[in-house]
Amino acid sequence: MTEINLLHNKRGLIFGAVDERSLAWHTALACKRCGAQIVLANTPIAIQLGTIRNLADSLQIPLLPCDATDVEQLGTLLDEAQRLLGGKIDFILHAVAMSHNLRRHKPYEEASYNYFLRTLDTSALSLHKLLATALKMDAVAQGGSVVTLTYIASQRTVMGYNDMADAKAMLESVVRNFGLIYGERKGVRINAVSQSPTPTKASAGFDRMNYFYRLTDELSPLGNANADDLADLCVMLFSDFTRKLTMQTIYNDGGFSNTALTTRFADTYSRAVELAKQDTE
Amino acid sequence: MTEINLLHNKRGLIFGAVDERSLAWHTALACKRCGAQIVLANTPIAIQLGTIRNLADSLQIPLLPCDATDVEQLGTLLDEAQRLLGGKIDFILHAVAMSHNLRRHKPYEEASYNYFLRTLDTSALSLHKLLATALKMDAVAQGGSVVTLTYIASQRTVMGYNDMADAKAMLESVVRNFGLIYGERKGVRINAVSQSPTPTKASAGFDRMNYFYRLTDELSPLGNANADDLADLCVMLFSDFTRKLTMQTIYNDGGFSNTALTTRFADTYSRAVELAKQDTE
Amino acid sequence: MTEINLLHNKRGLIFGAVDERSLAWHTALACKRCGAQIVLANTPIAIQLGTIRNLADSLQIPLLPCDATDVEQLGTLLDEAQRLLGGKIDFILHAVAMSHNLRRHKPYEEASYNYFLRTLDTSALSLHKLLATALKMDAVAQGGSVVTLTYIASQRTVMGYNDMADAKAMLESVVRNFGLIYGERKGVRINAVSQSPTPTKASAGFDRMNYFYRLTDELSPLGNANADDLADLCVMLFSDFTRKLTMQTIYNDGGFSNTALTTRFADTYSRAVELAKQDTE
Amino acid sequence: MTEINLLHNKRGLIFGAVDERSLAWHTALACKRCGAQIVLANTPIAIQLGTIRNLADSLQIPLLPCDATDVEQLGTLLDEAQRLLGGKIDFILHAVAMSHNLRRHKPYEEASYNYFLRTLDTSALSLHKLLATALKMDAVAQGGSVVTLTYIASQRTVMGYNDMADAKAMLESVVRNFGLIYGERKGVRINAVSQSPTPTKASAGFDRMNYFYRLTDELSPLGNANADDLADLCVMLFSDFTRKLTMQTIYNDGGFSNTALTTRFADTYSRAVELAKQDTE
Repeated sequence: MTEINLLHNKRGLIFGAVDERSLAWHTALACKRCGAQIVLANTPIAIQLGTIRNLADSLQIPLLPCDATDVEQLGTLLDEAQRLLGGKIDFILHAVAMSHNLRRHKPYEEASYNYFLRTLDTSALSLHKLLATALKMDAVAQGGSVVTLTYIASQRTVMGYNDMADAKAMLESVVRNFGLIYGERKGVRINAVSQSPTPTKASAGFDRMNYFYRLTDELSPLGNANADDLADLCVMLFSDFTRKLTMQTIYNDGGFSNTALTTRFADTYSRAVELAKQDTE
Repeated sequence: MTEINLLHNKRGLIFGAVDERSLAWHTALACKRCGAQIVLANTPIAIQLGTIRNLADSLQIPLLPCDATDVEQLGTLLDEAQRLLGGKIDFILHAVAMSHNLRRHKPYEEASYNYFLRTLDTSALSLHKLLATALKMDAVAQGGSVVTLTYIASQRTVMGYNDMADAKAMLESVVRNFGLIYGERKGVRINAVSQSPTPTKASAGFDRMNYFYRLTDELSPLGNANADDLADLCVMLFSDFTRKLTMQTIYNDGGFSNTALTTRFADTYSRAVELAKQDTE
Repeated sequence: MTEINLLHNKRGLIFGAVDERSLAWHTALACKRCGAQIVLANTPIAIQLGTIRNLADSLQIPLLPCDATDVEQLGTLLDEAQRLLGGKIDFILHAVAMSHNLRRHKPYEEASYNYFLRTLDTSALSLHKLLATALKMDAVAQGGSVVTLTYIASQRTVMGYNDMADAKAMLESVVRNFGLIYGERKGVRINAVSQSPTPTKASAGFDRMNYFYRLTDELSPLGNANADDLADLCVMLFSDFTRKLTMQTIYNDGGFSNTALTTRFADTYSRAVELAKQDTE
Repeated sequence: MTEINLLHNKRGLIFGAVDERSLAWHTALACKRCGAQIVLANTPIAIQLGTIRNLADSLQIPLLPCDATDVEQLGTLLDEAQRLLGGKIDFILHAVAMSHNLRRHKPYEEASYNYFLRTLDTSALSLHKLLATALKMDAVAQGGSVVTLTYIASQRTVMGYNDMADAKAMLESVVRNFGLIYGERKGVRINAVSQSPTPTKASAGFDRMNYFYRLTDELSPLGNANADDLADLCVMLFSDFTRKLTMQTIYNDGGFSNTALTTRFADTYSRAVELAKQDTE
């Protein structure tokens, strides 16, 4: 990977890195490599349970604890981030998602509604809170760029993805609604990236992750996008090269979203059907 | 309108009629006209503020009070509805939506989060609660059909539509998620209908409704769909003629969703631009 | 299937039935059963190679030969159909598609461009020709309805579906373009139905049809829609119950289009992966 | 605009620049500025009627004449381009579109079918021919990127955009179909960019262009994207920063595609309606 000064002089806030597998961590590294000055943030509990503190320290990147669902704390974070960065924020990555229903293996049809509302609050409303707070404070620079992460289960049902699917559908809507407001008033763009399934701490709750990961890889003509692929795409979306791209869900998935049948998968599947026949004979 | 026995012997539950303009009331009438036996339900406060009690009484349709966000009350409703109808429920209309942010003219970027969570609970989670409860009780008959109402602002931002846009995006996701579960387990289909803007009690909170209604009419090759158009479409979706149609958002909107420029609108707009020029001279 | 007079007094033209498996033939039967008066049409070669002549004769339905790509013949057909039906045409099914590249197993990347242009002419431009001719002749009644058949490969690539995918994408665009014109001028609606893969004479050219048919069935929560499911949906779209539904692609596919992973498919796939492991050990 | 070596060492072929307003010309300049080595190509007639020869000469960029619908000439072009560039091609811009129906103001419903087939051949099949030829010759480098230009009228009808809408719908399908093949076999990605309407020589045939351009600007939260915005987006899509993005239509349109009503447009429209009222009094 070459060092290209795509984000030279840009100030960024990266919310949601937990450990070295985190999509947000990979993105933070890529942004730094491309010349950006960044601040990391995450909820206190995620900082405590993960290894992000050590990672941030080792690279001397400031790490600020902040509950993403608490408007007051978000205000403090945006203040502090601007102070540390020396000006308004040019780009933000929002990589915040959590479902207690998923974690505790409560199937969708038996969801706890207490958990469900928390899933929505943490995984979708948190973006609204962040953007509403930043708007009031005028914290995002003209021409700025905001990215959040979503998953295709928001639009096509993945058995077992649970209430996170509904939260992601809502999240994509928040992107559009604030995209209009920030676009008209601030010249700021907001997009969601719908990424291939990626093995991270966050995806550990999804039971059939291993098979599903293999399946989507076989159904993606370029294979699954990994964390580095995402990080580079985020750099592009933060750069000035995409300044009229807004309110979109961008599929970074090796083609999965627009594919129904690949050669590779057809081979696996037809062999599987034949094997199953022999097996039952 | 001819009387066609499309829903002969079918038992339906219609949730959400408030007064004679309600989409749910028009649908109830159409279902009855097509041979269905129905039960109405709505939240106690809606029954109290609207005229649905008199309407129901005049046609001798049972009307059951039920808070759509209360799982226990939903259980009682489904029990009572099955008792009154004499068997499992063949079709359900979910027409439940409410935003206090919209009502109290709090702009999206200044939303009260307390209201926001209530918008989500009332307008989207209520469908989850209804379907989860009905699944546990096995209250929907094999081959049954569930319809909920949505609006295109869920996918394309309408300035001023507020948190309802996010709730509708989430609602469409609930349709897909339960569509998979009910499809695989019960042979039941679930769809959302995305209707043209329709002047009802519910739409009164949207400030620019009058202009917007005219605009969408001009941008719809067949004009806006009205409440009767919706009612008839629902009859079709409840009938056996659409038995493999599921997990979809069906646009009942005179073509608006797939149109960017009509002849009629182009005429209005170009005339308007010319008038505005003269006006400023 | 009950007899319901949904299409009472309606006059229909059904283009494209070849034999008793044809989607168009099933639709013709369903329309007749629902009270419509119909005329069948197909290209001379299809009439010659199929069994539609006998089928039509046995039910005393007129069958008119007409090359769907010949504007003059289409004019004659529309004249003759109106004469036989006794008035303007209320509904049309366009079920016309043919790819010589597919038939002769020429892979997409080695397509003959002569064949390709014929695929487009037969499978997409034929709808334009039919609708342009009918517009000039004012042959479709106010409130009428036109349906054509498409397949999801138009939007998500199915390895091996070949130039037919491009023709179907174009066909769906013709639906929208003429939907606007017919909507504004004639109050007529035009839609495409995107049907599950269905074993017919037309699908025989697609090499992996058997496996693919099973795969889509497993990935459709309600299973694949069959020819009768389509026929009934067409009746609904021809009826007055869907009068503001236009310019849409309606997915009649048991939920396939909005599903990424079902329980049933996850079971097959994970078992297959395990079997393949054992097999290679 | 800073000079960033995003395309350092990359070899590109840019097809379709006519004059200094051309999207392809702006893209060529941006690619060159970002370190790429490029070759221009266009049909002999476009070279003759435009000013691209002088532009190319002034920057010493090779310009090769080639009929985009002629497979043999495409083979020669790809040979020559590789020779001039010194290796396999890393990126291609396909910006080729022409409709004689549009040019000669033949309305969609009165299209000449001879012209229509030429529209399809020039504007959609030309991409197939280019990619099929390049595949046979193995002319695109592993990790390469291909971009073509489309317009939202392919998915949402724009009155007056004519047969070009159908050609663009087909073009987006060719992108997906070859995206799968090139993805699986060559690790090459293929995307379409759906650009805001841009005043160019090509758009001159669309009668209401001026009003429409203003309308879409008002309905785009960030305003219309211009030729430089597109050029930079193409650079991003050609760079290694988007290596798993494929088979997509990317909307570079200031948010238009996901917007139904902006504040700015609502103001214009409501004022226009009021003015029209006064005018008729």
